[in-house]
Amino acid sequence: MKVGFIGTGVMGSSLVKHLLTAGHDVIIYTRTAKKAESLVQAGAKLVESPKEVARAAETIFTMVGYPSDVEEVYFGDNGILENAQQGAVLVDLTTSKPNLAKRIFEEAASKGLKALDAPVSGGDIGAQKGTLSIMVGGAEPHFQAVLPLLELMGENIVYQGPAGSGQHTKMCNQINIATNMIGVCESLVYAKKAGLDPEQVLRSISSGAAGSWSLSNLAPRMIAEDFAPGFYIKHFIKDMKIAAEEAELMGLDLPGLRLSLGMYEKLAEQGYSENGTQALIKHFE
Amino acid sequence: MKVGFIGTGVMGSSLVKHLLTAGHDVIIYTRTAKKAESLVQAGAKLVESPKEVARAAETIFTMVGYPSDVEEVYFGDNGILENAQQGAVLVDLTTSKPNLAKRIFEEAASKGLKALDAPVSGGDIGAQKGTLSIMVGGAEPHFQAVLPLLELMGENIVYQGPAGSGQHTKMCNQINIATNMIGVCESLVYAKKAGLDPEQVLRSISSGAAGSWSLSNLAPRMIAEDFAPGFYIKHFIKDMKIAAEEAELMGLDLPGLRLSLGMYEKLAEQGYSENGTQALIKHFE
Repeated sequence: MKVGFIGTGVMGSSLVKHLLTAGHDVIIYTRTAKKAESLVQAGAKLVESPKEVARAAETIFTMVGYPSDVEEVYFGDNGILENAQQGAVLVDLTTSKPNLAKRIFEEAASKGLKALDAPVSGGDIGAQKGTLSIMVGGAEPHFQAVLPLLELMGENIVYQGPAGSGQHTKMCNQINIATNMIGVCESLVYAKKAGLDPEQVLRSISSGAAGSWSLSNLAPRMIAEDFAPGFYIKHFIKDMKIAAEEAELMGLDLPGLRLSLGMYEKLAEQGYSENGTQALIKHFE
Repeated sequence: MKVGFIGTGVMGSSLVKHLLTAGHDVIIYTRTAKKAESLVQAGAKLVESPKEVARAAETIFTMVGYPSDVEEVYFGDNGILENAQQGAVLVDLTTSKPNLAKRIFEEAASKGLKALDAPVSGGDIGAQKGTLSIMVGGAEPHFQAVLPLLELMGENIVYQGPAGSGQHTKMCNQINIATNMIGVCESLVYAKKAGLDPEQVLRSISSGAAGSWSLSNLAPRMIAEDFAPGFYIKHFIKDMKIAAEEAELMGLDLPGLRLSLGMYEKLAEQGYSENGTQALIKHFE
C-alpha cells in the first residue's frame, strides 16, 4: 500500500521503519530533510511538501509537534485536506487538541476523506519496539480500515469513540501522570530529608499500593540526577495546557493538574524545558 | 517461641494465624475480646491486658489504631515497656509517628528491651496471604533476630535504618498514594465529562506511563461506585496528617500532600470516613 508519513522525528522514524519492513511504499515529508536520510536509505521516498505526500498516498500518518503544526499540515495551502485523494484515510498520531481533531474530521468528511485522531503513548522505546498504546477517535469503520497499519506500530490499540476521543483519552493519560509525578517527587524529598536511603525506600514501596510506572521508571533517574529527556518537559507542558483548556471548556476544576502545570511552567522559566519530566524533582530541591 | 500480639483487628488476626500455623505459642490481647474468639479456637491464649502479654512473651507485636493507642500500649500503666522481660523484642506494626517510634526505642533500650518500628503495606489481603511489605526501623541486629517471624507475615521485608525509619518509609508510601489518587480521580471525571467510556479509557491507559496500582485497582471501583473500604478514609487521613506534621517539622513544603489531605478531610466532614479511599471521586462529582 502507498502510505504517507509526515513528521519523521525520533518516534515517527521508528514507525516509518515498521511500515517499510512490512513491505509498504512509504512517502515521507519532514521539515528537516536531514532527519530523513536513514529512512531514504531504508527505502522511503522523500518529497518536498505535505501536498506531495497527500497526492501520492492512500493512507497518511502525521506526527508533528504542536497543534499549530497539525493545523498547518492539514489546513495549510500545501496541506493534506486540500490535496488528498478521494477516500484517503488521514491519521494524526500527534498529541493535539480534541477540538482540532473534530474540525479535521468534519472538514475531511466534507471532502470525502476519512480522518482519525490517534495519539500514542509509550515513548521512543515503544515506537522502536512497535509496542505503543494507540488511542483512536473517529468513525469506527475508518478505524477498522487502518487497524492493520496501526498494528505494525502498537500493541494496545483501542477505539475510543467519535472524533476527538483519541485526544481526550490521551489527556486522561497525561492528567494521571501530571499529578502522580508530584507524589513521586514529594515522597523522594521526604525520604532524603528524613535521612532514609531513597533507593532502599523504593525497594519497600515500588511494588505495593504506591507503585506506578513513574515511581519504577523515573524515581531511579531522579535519584541518579539523570535528567536526560525520555519525555521532554516542553512537550508535557503542551499536553497539560491542552488538558487544562479542555477541562475549563467543560467546566471542570482539576486542582491537581493545575498544581503540576504550574510547577512545570516554573521549571521551564528556569530553563529546564529540554529536560525530561523527571526533572520535576528540582522544583522541590 | 512465646510470641505476644496486641491488637487483633482484621489484619492482626491474619498475622496471629500465621504465627500459630508456624507452631508458636501466641498470647494475645485485644480491646474487644469478641474479636479474638476465632483466634482462641485456633489455639491462641487470650489475656486481659498488654501487661500480661508483656510478661509472658519473648517477642511482642503490636498492631493498634492510632498513635495515641500505641502510646497507651507501650507507655501506659499496664503497658509493655514497664512489664516486658529483659531482652524482649517489641515490634510495632502500626502505622504511627516516627518520633513516637524513636521515643519507644530509647525508652526500651534504657530498660534492656529491643524495639522496632515495622509498619506494613498490602492491606487485608496481603495480611491474609502473608505477602505484606514490611518497612523496618530500629537496630539492625534486632531486625535480624525477628526476621524469621516477619517472614511469616510478609514477602518484601526491608530494613530501612535507625528507629523511626520504618515509619518514615511508610510515610513515603502514603505521600505517593495521596497525590496519585488525585490524578486517578481527575482523569476519570475528565473522561466522563468528555463523553468517553471510562472503562475503555482504562484499557488504553492502565498499562502505560500513567499506570499505577491505584489506577488498576481503585479506578474500576470508582467507576462501579463501589466504595467499600479496602483502606478506610479515616485511617488514610491519620497517615497523611502524620506525614504532613513530619514534613513541617523537617521544613518541607509538600503541596500535593496538602491538597490531598484537604480533599479527604472535606469528605470526612461530609460523612465518608468509613468509606474506602476510592471515594475521593465524590470530591469531584
